[in-house]
Amino acid sequence: MTKTEQLYEGKAKKVWATDDENIVIVDYKDDATAFNGIKKGTIVGKGVVNNKMSNYLMQILEKHGIPTHFVEELSDRETAVKKVKIVPLEVIIRNRAAGSICKRLGLEEGMDFVCPSIEFSYKDDELGDPLINGYHAVSCGFATKEDVETIKEMAFKVNDVLKEYFASIGVELIDFKLEFGKTADGTIVLADEISPDTCRFWDIKTHEKLDKDRFRRDLGGVEEAYEEMMKRVGLN
Amino acid sequence: MTKTEQLYEGKAKKVWATDDENIVIVDYKDDATAFNGIKKGTIVGKGVVNNKMSNYLMQILEKHGIPTHFVEELSDRETAVKKVKIVPLEVIIRNRAAGSICKRLGLEEGMDFVCPSIEFSYKDDELGDPLINGYHAVSCGFATKEDVETIKEMAFKVNDVLKEYFASIGVELIDFKLEFGKTADGTIVLADEISPDTCRFWDIKTHEKLDKDRFRRDLGGVEEAYEEMMKRVGLN
Repeated sequence: MTKTEQLYEGKAKKVWATDDENIVIVDYKDDATAFNGIKKGTIVGKGVVNNKMSNYLMQILEKHGIPTHFVEELSDRETAVKKVKIVPLEVIIRNRAAGSICKRLGLEEGMDFVCPSIEFSYKDDELGDPLINGYHAVSCGFATKEDVETIKEMAFKVNDVLKEYFASIGVELIDFKLEFGKTADGTIVLADEISPDTCRFWDIKTHEKLDKDRFRRDLGGVEEAYEEMMKRVGLN
Repeated sequence: MTKTEQLYEGKAKKVWATDDENIVIVDYKDDATAFNGIKKGTIVGKGVVNNKMSNYLMQILEKHGIPTHFVEELSDRETAVKKVKIVPLEVIIRNRAAGSICKRLGLEEGMDFVCPSIEFSYKDDELGDPLINGYHAVSCGFATKEDVETIKEMAFKVNDVLKEYFASIGVELIDFKLEFGKTADGTIVLADEISPDTCRFWDIKTHEKLDKDRFRRDLGGVEEAYEEMMKRVGLN
């Protein structure tokens, strides 16, 4: 597979076209941003961790019947994935209260929910990725009703599989963000990444944060947290 | 029925206990507020319009099988209603884009939606009634899954009935806010009010605003809009 032109450079990744029109190559960077790009920095080695961890988790999910964009890991930072049209929704599953929802709803961080919740943000940097719901997504034409239902079902299944997997390596999956895309034939697959950038991971016993919150909140030990997650997943 | 002590005074209504423990009396004021209480004023005659219009509409809804809190109109401003425990959700149905959602999602005012949407805000003045979804309501313990499903179904039915009714009097129902309550026996009924304070009404031909947006946006003709709606509904 050969890289041709660069299609896109985002906050944490570059995407390249290839000689196969249905395949693109994702190249993970060490650049870190938070609060919709207001805070910027570098987390040394993050690109490697996120690339390898994401690929590993997507393969676990595939084994559980969840289609993903993963095709082949090409190097420490590069992966071939199916070319998809991203559904413009950030899909967030929450198992415990953490982050911005605590302030918005007056909840204590770490509050255990009655049941997991799912929410959607409309992917639009200028608007600050506003919270919407599935009805808004359909009524505004961001997605069809069928797509929203498929995405909800897939996201809850991802949660079931990943919660169990992370518990087995001593990590509680607090919440996470997913993105979905449509392949050329219209199939919805899990896209983007699953990593300490996009999940909140807490040590199951000590509740120590092992994710990007260490960067967002200047807690120190950022690189160490990413490395610790890499170790627990068994990838270094 | 006799008023005993005052139970509550809100932005637009007072509520009194009565000698019947299952009945309270609502007393509609002319006080108007907007933007979560930041803007304050008076709309002369509003209490009368809202009381009578709300009662009239609730009786239409009852005829269509939707249970409401309405019991008996006692005077121009006072109505006996079932005593309920309010479910702490503001339920908003939107048929066309208007108000705050336009800025949040970058929509043009008046945009026709693919289909009506429903949304929930968590009723909490200090938090500014934040937007949530049905999953949040359940996961945070604000309502049960069954209650959320019942409320969604009732709200869409209210929309079907009211949209048709208002169209018959030359008014387009753009969006509206409902509140629901539980009676002593656990039945969910439509509560609060349905009025130019809680709905956006546009003249079906001219798109002239006939609701509280005239007050919110200093458009003038506020009292006249309330009176016009009263006239169209056939109540004066």
